[in-house]
Amino acid sequence: MKLFARFLCAVAVAACCGCSNEGWTTVDGVIVFDTPARAAGQHSVLRLQTEPLDTVRVGFIGLGMRGPGAVERFTYLDGVEINALCDLLPERVASSQQILAHRGFPEAAAYSGEEGWRELCERDDIDLVYICTPWQQHVEMAVYAMECGKHVALEVPAATSLAECWQLVDTAERTRRHCMMLENCVYDFFELTTLNMARHGLFGEILHVEGAYIHNLEPFWDHYQGNWRLDFNQSHRGDVYATHGLGPACQLLDIHRGDRMRYLVAMDTPSVNGLAIAREKMGAETFANGDHTLTLIKTERGRTIHLQHNVYTPRPYSRMYQLTGTEGFADKYPVEGYAFRPEQLSGEEIPDHENLSAHGFVPETVKKALMERYKHPIVLEIEEKAREVGGHGGMDFIMDYRLVYCLQHGLPLDMDVYDAAEWSAMGALTAMSLRHNSAPVAVPDFTRGDWNKVDGFHHAMLVR
Amino acid sequence: MKLFARFLCAVAVAACCGCSNEGWTTVDGVIVFDTPARAAGQHSVLRLQTEPLDTVRVGFIGLGMRGPGAVERFTYLDGVEINALCDLLPERVASSQQILAHRGFPEAAAYSGEEGWRELCERDDIDLVYICTPWQQHVEMAVYAMECGKHVALEVPAATSLAECWQLVDTAERTRRHCMMLENCVYDFFELTTLNMARHGLFGEILHVEGAYIHNLEPFWDHYQGNWRLDFNQSHRGDVYATHGLGPACQLLDIHRGDRMRYLVAMDTPSVNGLAIAREKMGAETFANGDHTLTLIKTERGRTIHLQHNVYTPRPYSRMYQLTGTEGFADKYPVEGYAFRPEQLSGEEIPDHENLSAHGFVPETVKKALMERYKHPIVLEIEEKAREVGGHGGMDFIMDYRLVYCLQHGLPLDMDVYDAAEWSAMGALTAMSLRHNSAPVAVPDFTRGDWNKVDGFHHAMLVR
Repeated sequence: MKLFARFLCAVAVAACCGCSNEGWTTVDGVIVFDTPARAAGQHSVLRLQTEPLDTVRVGFIGLGMRGPGAVERFTYLDGVEINALCDLLPERVASSQQILAHRGFPEAAAYSGEEGWRELCERDDIDLVYICTPWQQHVEMAVYAMECGKHVALEVPAATSLAECWQLVDTAERTRRHCMMLENCVYDFFELTTLNMARHGLFGEILHVEGAYIHNLEPFWDHYQGNWRLDFNQSHRGDVYATHGLGPACQLLDIHRGDRMRYLVAMDTPSVNGLAIAREKMGAETFANGDHTLTLIKTERGRTIHLQHNVYTPRPYSRMYQLTGTEGFADKYPVEGYAFRPEQLSGEEIPDHENLSAHGFVPETVKKALMERYKHPIVLEIEEKAREVGGHGGMDFIMDYRLVYCLQHGLPLDMDVYDAAEWSAMGALTAMSLRHNSAPVAVPDFTRGDWNKVDGFHHAMLVR
Repeated sequence: MKLFARFLCAVAVAACCGCSNEGWTTVDGVIVFDTPARAAGQHSVLRLQTEPLDTVRVGFIGLGMRGPGAVERFTYLDGVEINALCDLLPERVASSQQILAHRGFPEAAAYSGEEGWRELCERDDIDLVYICTPWQQHVEMAVYAMECGKHVALEVPAATSLAECWQLVDTAERTRRHCMMLENCVYDFFELTTLNMARHGLFGEILHVEGAYIHNLEPFWDHYQGNWRLDFNQSHRGDVYATHGLGPACQLLDIHRGDRMRYLVAMDTPSVNGLAIAREKMGAETFANGDHTLTLIKTERGRTIHLQHNVYTPRPYSRMYQLTGTEGFADKYPVEGYAFRPEQLSGEEIPDHENLSAHGFVPETVKKALMERYKHPIVLEIEEKAREVGGHGGMDFIMDYRLVYCLQHGLPLDMDVYDAAEWSAMGALTAMSLRHNSAPVAVPDFTRGDWNKVDGFHHAMLVR
């Protein structure tokens, strides 16, 4: 690879500057974290297939914000049993029991308190533990659940440090259990349709992808139990919530399925609004998380990803989903649009074809015709029900549906533990770059060398 | 400043790796180019005021693409004489003479051939040399014109290397002549209006600004004389055409008028479309300029700028003009929009005020009312004529109008030689970062320490 230039920075820094627990060195000017060795007898879980489950028996942990919606959505899925519910607070468990009752489901075993989740994990009538607790608790719970032999689905981000990312990977590999992060945005309709168009080559070679989490959380800060989210951001610099933007980008680029993220650089603004909120709500005098954080990521094949994070300033919601290819372009915010070379669409039977140019978005009629033609097979299968059940416009239901479908049929899940680690690692990696004048930081290869063994990203489907 | 972290990379690299003529070292992991010392007796030209000119006598060099439009626009300005025209090709000079005749202006002295421009510069009936030649010739011509005692306006980018940037600065300081880069996009209506809103505090504290040049040049490559533009891109990696995006960003951030760009990182994609075009048109086997190039810039006050460059792939035209402030947001592409905290507009008499939220763009009626109220004073003065004369929708005329207005009244120009150097330096600086795994590269302080002496960016106006 000539991409690593001859920039010799021959200083091996043995320990980091107190800002992280991980050891690292610099190689050609790039900060490289140590990769822990894989334990003897532990093997990759790439494309992991486990025993098919006629019925997926699930227990939910965390019934505050995201949990109750998940419980309700599961009642619309065929072939599931909801056998246990857990939350720190018993009244939240009772609320979710009412959801079950209302939907005609039997009462589930109830757990609460600081340690209730452990008892839930230990039950022998559960296949899947579905975790919607604050970020800080994800890994402890996920690891315990896998050690109890359960598959795990857990909210985003799955982990909050590199050590935690490795813990998830190692536990999944050791226990041979699935560990899927509940990244719902990869299932949104525009994203799935665009991914399908990409698979059909409509954009040519994909060169650059963008994603973001830009969402003014001002009205929401009071709703996180014990102030956990503002607490976390107060002490963590970097893109701490990258997965909604990064997930769709990585699926488009076949990350650890033919390409991989090699290194990143990050930059942020001062914290003005974040600090003001933390001062008001916590009496804080500092705030680590910049109001706006930007990241550039380079892949092994030389392609680029651009991420942004901003939960503090008045702006329209945006996940900045965008794709630049050699033959076409897609952009979701603030308005969904596609652009193509006219000749790129010459085989398509679409209206207004004469009016196309390579310099503007295609007309609405063309866009609609293309989006109908390239509707993703998963959407075709479940669209009507997803829109009926809802959950962020249906994408949450499609996510749950796919999780259960793959578990039922013993297929590899759409997102594996390496996705969870890669996407969640952004927080720690960007923080490192930010602390070092935006220096490049290598993205760990959580597959430990297997990133090129799977031929492209696929949604596993039964051959019918 | 705590922003330079304790990342010790104690290697002083004495010479660069053959990729540039400039000497550089690394300081705290940041690549820092040497700053040439200012010659004895040479002084800053910040806020330079020169003798008022009742009539601005102009000579034009370069009458291929951008030149003839400039000649025509000048015929609409009061108090100008067009005394000389020059191009490599005499037939182009003849075409521009016809513009003058058609507009009732006397014939100008005509120059052509390889050295005609020198004779034009040497005339004693010219105050301003207006240069629209290929990028590669800008600096030689601008330097000679200043040495001949003329003010200079020159097309973007003003220079193509750091050495050339310093040459412009040193020549302007030594000769006490104006050297303005013809960055027209800072005069576009949305940009001027938004700048005026920013001056009135509508966005609160400005944290982050974006800009770009995204323009598929496929239909244009054959129109650059002798293939100079594709030639240049074929051999130059980096954001070689950053000024249209960066100019408006720097005016919003008061760059070298209270803040300065400290360092940048850049990342690019492989060249696929660029290489294909160069293979077809030049028989080239390599192409240095990536199809898509991204840059992040950090300022002294910690704020951020994001730039993109892409002239190769099918995408809608975009300069990505965007502003994120603590109290508001502006975005120009693909649709012009503003977002504010509702209370931020509480003093404004605008319709639909009740409907505002901090989470979406303000309605069209509110946007229109705000844009009318905050129309920039310059636009108020010249709007009607600018739209009539045209030139990229009027912004080119406003630019020429301002240049002549300030020269006539002996006022500082809107853009000085430091702007020209800072904005043009992006090509060389991003190339350096790209060659070193996106390592941070310090942006030279072309004011040599005076970046904090002017109190904010202003358009100089006569007090009436």
